[in-house]
Amino acid sequence: MRLHNYFRSSTSTRLRIALNLKGLDYDYVGYPLLERAHKDPAFVARNPAGLVPVLELQDGTHLSQSLAIIEYLDETHPSPPLLPDDALGRARVRALAQLVACDIHPLNNLRVLQYLERELGQDQAGKTRWFRHWVAEAFAPLEEMLASSRDTGVFCHRDTPGLADICLYAQVWNNRRFDVDMTAYPTISAIFERLDQIDAFARAAPPRQPDATGA
Amino acid sequence: MRLHNYFRSSTSTRLRIALNLKGLDYDYVGYPLLERAHKDPAFVARNPAGLVPVLELQDGTHLSQSLAIIEYLDETHPSPPLLPDDALGRARVRALAQLVACDIHPLNNLRVLQYLERELGQDQAGKTRWFRHWVAEAFAPLEEMLASSRDTGVFCHRDTPGLADICLYAQVWNNRRFDVDMTAYPTISAIFERLDQIDAFARAAPPRQPDATGA
Repeated sequence: MRLHNYFRSSTSTRLRIALNLKGLDYDYVGYPLLERAHKDPAFVARNPAGLVPVLELQDGTHLSQSLAIIEYLDETHPSPPLLPDDALGRARVRALAQLVACDIHPLNNLRVLQYLERELGQDQAGKTRWFRHWVAEAFAPLEEMLASSRDTGVFCHRDTPGLADICLYAQVWNNRRFDVDMTAYPTISAIFERLDQIDAFARAAPPRQPDATGA
Repeated sequence: MRLHNYFRSSTSTRLRIALNLKGLDYDYVGYPLLERAHKDPAFVARNPAGLVPVLELQDGTHLSQSLAIIEYLDETHPSPPLLPDDALGRARVRALAQLVACDIHPLNNLRVLQYLERELGQDQAGKTRWFRHWVAEAFAPLEEMLASSRDTGVFCHRDTPGLADICLYAQVWNNRRFDVDMTAYPTISAIFERLDQIDAFARAAPPRQPDATGA
């Protein structure tokens, strides 16, 4: 398999974690998004949306959308499972994951921050305010949902890392770029620290990728 | 079951379609979002994120995040299925659904348009430009993915309406509020027209809900 991705893209981080947890080897292909490498015809042929990550299977099939790909990996490589074995548990884990994947990340990714700058004249302070606003709008309820549920264990759902943890871990890394104050989120922070002790997560972190730069 | 929702919310429309397709009865509870009814303590107790829709089960469990809820309904009420029976087919349908659910809707919902107005001083023209921009960014590749795939049939995936159709139908309704020009999307438009002939879809449309207003 080949992973077409970018070190700092949090959707790419999610997929790297899932591949690591499943013990699947992959070739890493990095796309410098700031140079618009993902808008290159060669990449757009892989994903018409021009968005990383894309997972290229052995037979040349290209899969897009990180959550859809992770569910595919979970179905085709069931061990270890990334979702609980009961429908209500799966609904909870998917909802926690989507609170990050639908209500934070789409608002805060590169293309949106570029629109804010180019079209709406926002400077770095305006972009930082925007980023932190949408994180807070979802991290406050995420913290409450995790802190108040008996289903929360060592990780987001009981004691096995799964889909919600994958999204949480990638988002906390993303937050660091905008110095998000995490003091209001002790449960999220504690789960992040535990995940960071797991090799499959730590190896997927942005600074450890081959295309990582300080920029 | 009780559906806590709002007639014009496209995530609510998705859930109404899924419930209709599954033949499940539900009590409709409408929340006038413009009056911030979803920020009321009674609603926030149901969903700390303060976002519709929420599905309340018989036992009082509250489920949030429309895609997570639809997967729950599909698992607990398998007939008719909303996802294909093969892993690659499911990956394709989930990716098409998420192209709408992650890459359009989160950017264009009420809370974001309100932020643009209140915090960034955007007028109606600025909000309309924003809305149309993100629709175009995702509808262009969605059109291409649908038009170019042999897996596209009468509906998004073969000839059975499913999760991707649910997201497509709800988004096209949403587009109408901002007069999105659909001429560049003939495949999407044709699928929408076919879906609109299905009672489970048409009954879920915003204007046919009990809390619908012209506002």
